[in-house]
Amino acid sequence: MQIIHTVKELREWRKTAGRVAFVPTMGNLHEGHLALVREAKKRADNVVVSIFVNRLQFGQGEDFDKYPRTLGQDAAKLEGEGVAVVFAPDEKELYPNVEQRYNVEPPNLQNELCGRFRPGHFRGVATVVTKLFNIVQPDAACFGKKDYQQLAIIKGFAEDLNFNVEIVPVDTGRASDGLALSSRNQYLNENERAEAPRLFRELNKIAEALRGGNLAYAELEQTAVRNLTAAGWTVDYVEIRHAESLAVAHAGDKDLVVLAAARLGGTRLIDNVEVSLR
Amino acid sequence: MQIIHTVKELREWRKTAGRVAFVPTMGNLHEGHLALVREAKKRADNVVVSIFVNRLQFGQGEDFDKYPRTLGQDAAKLEGEGVAVVFAPDEKELYPNVEQRYNVEPPNLQNELCGRFRPGHFRGVATVVTKLFNIVQPDAACFGKKDYQQLAIIKGFAEDLNFNVEIVPVDTGRASDGLALSSRNQYLNENERAEAPRLFRELNKIAEALRGGNLAYAELEQTAVRNLTAAGWTVDYVEIRHAESLAVAHAGDKDLVVLAAARLGGTRLIDNVEVSLR
Repeated sequence: MQIIHTVKELREWRKTAGRVAFVPTMGNLHEGHLALVREAKKRADNVVVSIFVNRLQFGQGEDFDKYPRTLGQDAAKLEGEGVAVVFAPDEKELYPNVEQRYNVEPPNLQNELCGRFRPGHFRGVATVVTKLFNIVQPDAACFGKKDYQQLAIIKGFAEDLNFNVEIVPVDTGRASDGLALSSRNQYLNENERAEAPRLFRELNKIAEALRGGNLAYAELEQTAVRNLTAAGWTVDYVEIRHAESLAVAHAGDKDLVVLAAARLGGTRLIDNVEVSLR
Repeated sequence: MQIIHTVKELREWRKTAGRVAFVPTMGNLHEGHLALVREAKKRADNVVVSIFVNRLQFGQGEDFDKYPRTLGQDAAKLEGEGVAVVFAPDEKELYPNVEQRYNVEPPNLQNELCGRFRPGHFRGVATVVTKLFNIVQPDAACFGKKDYQQLAIIKGFAEDLNFNVEIVPVDTGRASDGLALSSRNQYLNENERAEAPRLFRELNKIAEALRGGNLAYAELEQTAVRNLTAAGWTVDYVEIRHAESLAVAHAGDKDLVVLAAARLGGTRLIDNVEVSLR
């Protein structure tokens, strides 16, 4: 396994690499990331994993500075998975100009759901993933469903801008109690960690209600917000949306997803559950 | 020479095409375009020319509907130049969704110079060229210096978004009287055509003054505006800018470009002259 730090060397390697599958990450890898890598391995012999904490997608007051950087440990895990290349550029390598002048601008979906609480976040994601696609030139790229809105936006720009990259969604990895795996889970103290799986449980309650024919979307959302708030959470949103477009769900929609973001202490957690009514 | 209309067939052809140089056009080809093609031929055996009148870069009230579509004649000219592929998608092929949701958003430069008079134009250009780059995946792409601001914006996003495409600027083709070649010249009546070279002459007067040490930018600009207006033009702008960044020129700048846009009757013409004071 090679660790490559510059665009130039990556491009050089790419010339003879044949088919490539790509997993972009911000490092601090856990089992959820490794599931993405395993999915990537099925798609191509050569898997590239990027590790880059992308300042552009962090808002003011977010955890950019304290976001864990653990390249040594990450590389060891990836070596064990048979990854060909770890691409770990420093900030100046990806943003040589002080300012990123040209951005990939998503539609209004970027201001809804998580975007309402993280202005500029999805522009930053779309822009860095565009850059990485252009550097790595993968045939396929794997993204976790945990970041469901991010996945929708990546599918969206890849299609709209004609990127020749197959976008592969991968199911959310979970702890045995259901908590979605996330680098941010390590910010939780013991009590918070014990409480955290409630988010997934509330989403599942809504999913079961929907499957049972209860389509009172607003009421279901409000009940979950109430339950989480009562248990000490600060809820950003719980919303039922159309699974493909992420448009607000309408009566009669068959493919739904229930998404939530809520804070426990200083830690913001997100999760979602897909619901097919077909 | 193949004429290809779909993204799918183009991608299929691309797989075995080796090194490719690309010339994106809106068709209605003249000698200026053919100069781009000849420059492209120097860069790669396989030259792809796209012909697509891009609605996204036309504003309300602009000439999208009357823009000349002359695919048959264009193809004949390109055949003579040894072009490998003409890529001529229809609108639904490039914009299958009614709306282009994800766009490449240039910085404020898009609202200056021509952008002040054509809101959204450069976003439309950056977005369609991104799409075409992703479809054609060229090693090099040639753009005329006549559209100097467009060239700056394409160089800008290609660099900022890490496109692996060499952007090749090509000198403006001109008629014997100096008029820059443009598809829009055919909108000029006989009198207008006789008057049209004045634009280039005024730019050259500024260039000579600058080279002669007259750095009174504003005065030089205003004199040209006055002269053009007196000759019946409606001037959008005459501006002296930094040649690389297109920032407003400062005292001491060595690499300048003088740019102008002005209307003669209903026809908007643009031109520019580079000035090196090194």
